[in-house]
Amino acid sequence: MIDQLIEAIIQKKSPIVVGLDPRFNQIPQAIKEKCLAEYGETLEAVAAAIKIFNRGIIDAVADEVPAVKPQVAFYEQYGLPGMAAYLDACQYAASKGLVVIADVKRGDIGSTSKAYAKAHLGQVQVGNKNYQGFPADFATINPYLGDDCMKEFEAEIVQEDKGIFILVKTSNPTSGQLQDLVMADGKHLYEKTAEIVAGWNDKICGKFGYSPVGAVVGATYPEELSALRAQMPKAMLLVPGYGAQGGGAKDVINAFDTKGLGAIVNNSRGIIFAYEKIGGDYQEAARKAVIAMKQDINDTLSSVGKQYW
Amino acid sequence: MIDQLIEAIIQKKSPIVVGLDPRFNQIPQAIKEKCLAEYGETLEAVAAAIKIFNRGIIDAVADEVPAVKPQVAFYEQYGLPGMAAYLDACQYAASKGLVVIADVKRGDIGSTSKAYAKAHLGQVQVGNKNYQGFPADFATINPYLGDDCMKEFEAEIVQEDKGIFILVKTSNPTSGQLQDLVMADGKHLYEKTAEIVAGWNDKICGKFGYSPVGAVVGATYPEELSALRAQMPKAMLLVPGYGAQGGGAKDVINAFDTKGLGAIVNNSRGIIFAYEKIGGDYQEAARKAVIAMKQDINDTLSSVGKQYW
Repeated sequence: MIDQLIEAIIQKKSPIVVGLDPRFNQIPQAIKEKCLAEYGETLEAVAAAIKIFNRGIIDAVADEVPAVKPQVAFYEQYGLPGMAAYLDACQYAASKGLVVIADVKRGDIGSTSKAYAKAHLGQVQVGNKNYQGFPADFATINPYLGDDCMKEFEAEIVQEDKGIFILVKTSNPTSGQLQDLVMADGKHLYEKTAEIVAGWNDKICGKFGYSPVGAVVGATYPEELSALRAQMPKAMLLVPGYGAQGGGAKDVINAFDTKGLGAIVNNSRGIIFAYEKIGGDYQEAARKAVIAMKQDINDTLSSVGKQYW
Repeated sequence: MIDQLIEAIIQKKSPIVVGLDPRFNQIPQAIKEKCLAEYGETLEAVAAAIKIFNRGIIDAVADEVPAVKPQVAFYEQYGLPGMAAYLDACQYAASKGLVVIADVKRGDIGSTSKAYAKAHLGQVQVGNKNYQGFPADFATINPYLGDDCMKEFEAEIVQEDKGIFILVKTSNPTSGQLQDLVMADGKHLYEKTAEIVAGWNDKICGKFGYSPVGAVVGATYPEELSALRAQMPKAMLLVPGYGAQGGGAKDVINAFDTKGLGAIVNNSRGIIFAYEKIGGDYQEAARKAVIAMKQDINDTLSSVGKQYW
């Protein structure tokens, strides 16, 4: 799947993932009104609005980006109807040929992580039948519990051809509270996590030189991004923080290798709610925002001689 | 809610939480067969079996323990029907007067953590109506992203009278890979996390001297447990690892304060699947296992002069 992701990035000339983080109050009024009229003031109305909205976004950007990243928290908060909308986002995106990155940030003891691996990347068996609970291609993983967690995803990575992105250095303001702590050997905690990722990378690697075990490194910390790119040469980097969180193309450029591969940059609010800023139809606005972001990143990659295509 | 939890522990003389981690293959044959006959080899059959099984466990132990802790991964793996069974476990346990600890180990950047807080402890508004997605009293939180996450749970803790348990030192074999790393100042990472917990404890505290911001510290690391008890004197400790993971009463005893309060010990497989070991009806076996665990912990607390009741 890591190879498919990279192939799609190259084919679409677009190292961009669109974050599907629907906030009900920001969904266009017409969609909300239609769903509230049909279902009343219920979670079902919210879920229906999210489904329509997400499908609209996916239709608008599917030929311009290789992947989408639904953030499950924004669905979980709306209970079972919300989770049905999450499932719909995963399935609809896959039906449009997009790679789906489940932003679930799961992580637990071994036997529990096994269940998470099956939930998001694998299958469960019921008698002679197999089912996928919330099917995705990649999942994000929190490393605080150590390798017991990652090991349980290995079966899905190898047998089901899936991948994971391990949180190394996140994009939020207090990410440094634990992640930047300095160890007795002078290294930061995030570098220790990067060592775990690099260890996995040596075990499993795809044809472009990248492993299905990638890392999350925020655009909001460009210096760390540069160091971590060097420390994990086989890790695909999932880079959040571009756009609403404050990162720009110059901040993400060091996530890419010398050929211009090895990274995929996320933008959520800046794309899906672009209509709030630039006006007009939300689908057209999202498409314009994706094309502008693509141009921004490609121009910057080109300016440093890193554009692959 | 922290006061209610401690009051229930005292009233039932039982610092025990039953982990509701249903594994379909371990659910009694009769329940599985009934559900497979009714729903075929489907996720709905699994969910129906889990619902019956969990309700049976809750009925069997409700007067002997103050709380249950459903581990959401075991439900998530069965997709939407699984999540319906998770919701049922939360609601049915609450209807029997039990405190519900959502073992979700969530943690994310601020705006996303806000959504998780609403999902598990709070409410979402749709027009003039409020809904609870997956209602629980406490949720477990992963600290890797720092205080941005915890801050977002503050509204639910204060306004909705809920609580959280932050992962400090987990019970699994590789927990030390990051958590035991030694910092430049000689402290372990888990002690740094404990400092964050202790910081929150100074801000919010209940009538028994315990804060609604507690900590997860595994029974499988008794020395660390002892040190962390001292370092976080106002943190209620949620202690996993007793039973199937290898911890015994002597290992958990240092989680309690000198009065015999301040800790709640989890047991999942050792109680809910006790029938596999001691035979007979699964409900009776679970009840026997809870009573034996209660005796074990109370005897050990008593032997060191720490029994509160």
